[in-house]
Amino acid sequence: MTSPVWTARVLTLFPEMFPGPLGHSLAGKALEAGIWALETVDIRYFASDKHRSVDDAAFGGGPGLVMRPDVIDAALAAVMGAAGPDRRSADAGPPIYLTPRGRPLTQERVRALAAEPRITLLCGRYEGVDERVLEAWQAEEISVGDYVLSGGEPAAIVLLDACVRLLPGVVGDAKTLAEESFEGWLLEYPHYTRPQEWRGRPVPEVLASGNHQKIRAWRRAQAEATTRQRRPDLWARYRAQQAVMEG
Amino acid sequence: MTSPVWTARVLTLFPEMFPGPLGHSLAGKALEAGIWALETVDIRYFASDKHRSVDDAAFGGGPGLVMRPDVIDAALAAVMGAAGPDRRSADAGPPIYLTPRGRPLTQERVRALAAEPRITLLCGRYEGVDERVLEAWQAEEISVGDYVLSGGEPAAIVLLDACVRLLPGVVGDAKTLAEESFEGWLLEYPHYTRPQEWRGRPVPEVLASGNHQKIRAWRRAQAEATTRQRRPDLWARYRAQQAVMEG
Repeated sequence: MTSPVWTARVLTLFPEMFPGPLGHSLAGKALEAGIWALETVDIRYFASDKHRSVDDAAFGGGPGLVMRPDVIDAALAAVMGAAGPDRRSADAGPPIYLTPRGRPLTQERVRALAAEPRITLLCGRYEGVDERVLEAWQAEEISVGDYVLSGGEPAAIVLLDACVRLLPGVVGDAKTLAEESFEGWLLEYPHYTRPQEWRGRPVPEVLASGNHQKIRAWRRAQAEATTRQRRPDLWARYRAQQAVMEG
Repeated sequence: MTSPVWTARVLTLFPEMFPGPLGHSLAGKALEAGIWALETVDIRYFASDKHRSVDDAAFGGGPGLVMRPDVIDAALAAVMGAAGPDRRSADAGPPIYLTPRGRPLTQERVRALAAEPRITLLCGRYEGVDERVLEAWQAEEISVGDYVLSGGEPAAIVLLDACVRLLPGVVGDAKTLAEESFEGWLLEYPHYTRPQEWRGRPVPEVLASGNHQKIRAWRRAQAEATTRQRRPDLWARYRAQQAVMEG
């Protein structure tokens, strides 16, 4: 029995941007080891006119070009095999369109995507993609953060990197994944290593004590203090969760 | 008079990840045109022991390795030229450390960074960087989103892409930059292009009307509705701002 490989299909006008940084280090080794597969699809291939144009002026005016719905649709259908009038593929989740208008990506969503057998990412350029093709494919719109990029490609790289490190066998010690930021809504505690004293700054005494219960309590307190100070939004969720668990 | 070039200095264990996607399309053309410069610095070069080790076990135990403060300090000092005991450089802002524990990156912060003459990015790997060297350099900790990456490099690529597109001369039509997501806390309105009717879905009538006042009002209403529905957090900020403007 062979275990199917987690596969990412990326629709882009710039296939040469991939694997990019994902071809090195952790993700690159996992790619080489066949733990995941990356298929890039050049959207321009699906342009049907003689100029191979993929975009056109926006209805209603304004600067910038918009990617055509028919071209994107042809690319998605070729990759996902659309079945019915709703253009949804029978055997796969909806395509993911990376856009600042989307729902902010969370570690929770990353975990769910890493658990899918394959995901399909649509990278827009210029002013973005015609709204109708997103509606027709019931695309999931995801934003990697509250800023604007030159296109979906850097966002796709970030999303894929976050997913790939969660695939079984990618990170050597799975315990690493259990104690990190956003598990239980807390930011992670601070880290220290040798030298024990550096430029007059000693490592916090408790960490060298060998008392594991005290170390755990200290780290927890640090994680709580950092989250409360830096991220009142996460802190509120953490507190609500605590209240439920204690209630 | 020559205008100095916007320069990004990236400290990383994987210089081969750069420029990566930033070597293509918009950012790549701007790099080639000399609108910005990218200097990667291999942190491993600053390891001082015979094994060239850059990391070590965490004090207090736990899985994963932590990047040593002395190695990171040497790399930062070489690049930024530390002046005093606070390790802050005299002629540059603090280094930016990319970490999920940081302050979430916003378009506002991107604009400010693009207005600096140069920025210095520190990419962590493994469990991250020893806390003391971040304190000593008063590093600005920035998070690109609420998820965990294999290292700072994909985050650096996203941050640089966001900055570079704002540099003068990179995006052809500067008007493009004025009407986009997060300007005034609103998500952008939807876009439409040819064909005017596609698979039974027509472009909204108003956009083909030629009435620019109505088009502006429709787009505004769409941006408001999308923001209210998808991002209650941004919507609250937008409403607060409106309240101030209306007095």
